[in-house]
Amino acid sequence: MDTSALATDMYQLAMLQGYFRSGMRDTAVFEFFARRLPGRRNFLTAAGLAQALAFLESLRFTPDELEWLESTGQFEPDFLEHLATFKFQGDVYAPPEGTILFADEPMLRVTAPLPQAQLVESRLINLLHFQTMIASKAARAVLAAPGRLLVDFGFRRAHGAEAGILAARAAYIAGFSGTATVAAGREFGIPLYGTMAHSFVQAGDSEAAAFRAFARANRQAVVLLLDTYDTERAAREVVRLAPGLARDGIAIHGVRIDSGDLAAHARAVRRILDAGGLAKVTIFASGGLDEYALAKLAAERAPIDGFGVGTALDVSADAPYLDCAYKLVEYAGRPRRKRSEGKATWPGRKQVHRSFDAAGRMNGDIVTLAGDVRPGEPLLRLVMRGGRRVAAAESLDVIRRRAAEHLAQLPDRLRSLDAAEPYPVEISPALLALAVECDAAERAGAG
Amino acid sequence: MDTSALATDMYQLAMLQGYFRSGMRDTAVFEFFARRLPGRRNFLTAAGLAQALAFLESLRFTPDELEWLESTGQFEPDFLEHLATFKFQGDVYAPPEGTILFADEPMLRVTAPLPQAQLVESRLINLLHFQTMIASKAARAVLAAPGRLLVDFGFRRAHGAEAGILAARAAYIAGFSGTATVAAGREFGIPLYGTMAHSFVQAGDSEAAAFRAFARANRQAVVLLLDTYDTERAAREVVRLAPGLARDGIAIHGVRIDSGDLAAHARAVRRILDAGGLAKVTIFASGGLDEYALAKLAAERAPIDGFGVGTALDVSADAPYLDCAYKLVEYAGRPRRKRSEGKATWPGRKQVHRSFDAAGRMNGDIVTLAGDVRPGEPLLRLVMRGGRRVAAAESLDVIRRRAAEHLAQLPDRLRSLDAAEPYPVEISPALLALAVECDAAERAGAG
Repeated sequence: MDTSALATDMYQLAMLQGYFRSGMRDTAVFEFFARRLPGRRNFLTAAGLAQALAFLESLRFTPDELEWLESTGQFEPDFLEHLATFKFQGDVYAPPEGTILFADEPMLRVTAPLPQAQLVESRLINLLHFQTMIASKAARAVLAAPGRLLVDFGFRRAHGAEAGILAARAAYIAGFSGTATVAAGREFGIPLYGTMAHSFVQAGDSEAAAFRAFARANRQAVVLLLDTYDTERAAREVVRLAPGLARDGIAIHGVRIDSGDLAAHARAVRRILDAGGLAKVTIFASGGLDEYALAKLAAERAPIDGFGVGTALDVSADAPYLDCAYKLVEYAGRPRRKRSEGKATWPGRKQVHRSFDAAGRMNGDIVTLAGDVRPGEPLLRLVMRGGRRVAAAESLDVIRRRAAEHLAQLPDRLRSLDAAEPYPVEISPALLALAVECDAAERAGAG
Repeated sequence: MDTSALATDMYQLAMLQGYFRSGMRDTAVFEFFARRLPGRRNFLTAAGLAQALAFLESLRFTPDELEWLESTGQFEPDFLEHLATFKFQGDVYAPPEGTILFADEPMLRVTAPLPQAQLVESRLINLLHFQTMIASKAARAVLAAPGRLLVDFGFRRAHGAEAGILAARAAYIAGFSGTATVAAGREFGIPLYGTMAHSFVQAGDSEAAAFRAFARANRQAVVLLLDTYDTERAAREVVRLAPGLARDGIAIHGVRIDSGDLAAHARAVRRILDAGGLAKVTIFASGGLDEYALAKLAAERAPIDGFGVGTALDVSADAPYLDCAYKLVEYAGRPRRKRSEGKATWPGRKQVHRSFDAAGRMNGDIVTLAGDVRPGEPLLRLVMRGGRRVAAAESLDVIRRRAAEHLAQLPDRLRSLDAAEPYPVEISPALLALAVECDAAERAGAG
């Protein structure tokens, strides 16, 4: 993970110099939220809080970063001396990772002296936006292929190494079984899956020689790739090789199909394997898959046990960004509001209350001011006080379980891959009244 | 930049164990290329080679990485001992960064002992794919807004910190003037631009107070944000404040508009500024911009001097991935070919020759076997021999100049933002013949 304080936008530093020079260091409250959901998305699965909190805890300017900032000629010595002591000391409220959220609902609320709450904006968005987007995309794949093994294969086309590693984490939270990305396995303890590439088959003296060499060298969880030359021919090869490998104590675990009509190939391969006494050998499919392809294969009852989902997942191909923002909602005890056309924000510190029906399904949320007593479970909790986490980081298993529970609580229509009637999120009367009040005060002040 | 050897796919390590166990370490040749261009893209601008070569030079397994691999129980001790000595010692050919390329044209050719050429696949794709995609996207913005200042604003919604930093580099290569991402300024010497955020204005006692505080603290290249409450009202505020700031030796450099009808606001703001004696103050626009929005604003002759292009650029929103692959084309002196349906590859080591017309415009490429003498400039050059770069890394200025030259050499129809008749890329007779030969040999071998 990049931990440099310079992983930020230039204007944050320019503004900090402004706050420093004019003594603006009262308490500010910022909130991070999605303005609206992408086209066909019916919900968001919050993810990335652990990395966001780690960032806040460790954020410091190193002496060589400060020296470099000085060399730009844009910052004055007393301001840089001040930056040398920078430390985030604020409070953070957030729904825990794995929580299902909707537009307008804060994913994070930061309360800190203005410069501290300001500086962290760029990287906080960078961390929370990406993992939330990927977890939300992965949750759709989980909905599309219930009960199948889903593995993240996307590292190579993820946008850089950090994206690949964090995408593996977000997908695992949302219900994937694991990832192919080794660094994510090491960093987060996510189960690793790997098969073989076409190059291994191509480099062999023959396909059979390559299969044998791979199986002998790896022995456990051997998955052989069938489609380098001819998928069904390769399946027959597997049947021919199996007895010899079994004599060496090697059971072929599965085969992978990576191109062509996956359902048709899977059916043909299943028949060949079953007829060859390999009913236990699983079929794994990959190659340009996304949640729609998974839903189609599930609807066709393709005999596929697991899927590798790569590029479409790791880049969130149908919606590669969320319309989201980190906005000042209060400063020096006064609620604040931006009125920019098409981008107006709700003022004040907010809380989200969620109601459930008798069957335990989510029934409607209300966004209101923190402190406004409302029925329903409040989603935002205190996670950091004075710059220190209030509890140890949650395990991925706990987060994964929560994400699964939330997915199960989702009303049926929102489980569709297509856009459904939106989940009801009410803006409370108290919040509406405060927005009107803010506008009036701003107009009076400007008059 | 992530430098861990574990930033790779699990199957690479499984295959390496297979190669190790069966003694497959003959020379392999892999090539990285785009299979096809995304919908409306007419060309690619190659980028990322510097990071790819740095990765190859520095790739090692650390003792704690090896210890962790051992703990997975999937790798045997002698193989791990072998990995401890791993070092990339191959040769690399590539077109230099900034080169314009098309589908089927290798962006990289790696020649190395099979395990070395194999292991590096995941991270090589991860690095080259991303920067090439972003540089190609950025080049479209450059074509859409000739002569305007273009600044990368995308860090916050880039997919992680590495993506944000490398996107800034790729955009600068393609002709952007700079970036807002501080870390990219430090790492690559890219010019930094920064204005102010709405929060600065919101936190001020009034908009005027905020403008004054920001200008006094930053003094150089002050750009004031107009749209927090009311864009034209804010422009009049700037006119009112300018004389006082001028007395303090501060000249307002520009204003920024971030929402609403940018062309209409820019016209109104320009009139207000000009009438107020601020004809030299520039207008900078941002807010959800992409190359299409830039082209529209240029067509409307909106009086905008520069643009901040953020999310759409850094995530390559219309085409967030390229269909690309790193494929084995030769092993142990024999050309290799994958025949998978819809994903067949061309065998053998390849070179691309480019022809130009009398006016110096690109006139057609031919992809042929390396060594096949053809008219036209060969695009792939030796950049690494035996694991060491043959020359120092090119400066970004050199690369930027090359990208601009290539853009100028592009046939007019390919400069359109919409899909044009594709640029002619011929597969040479020698290459076609080799493909037929490979298929026949593979069928015979399998028979």
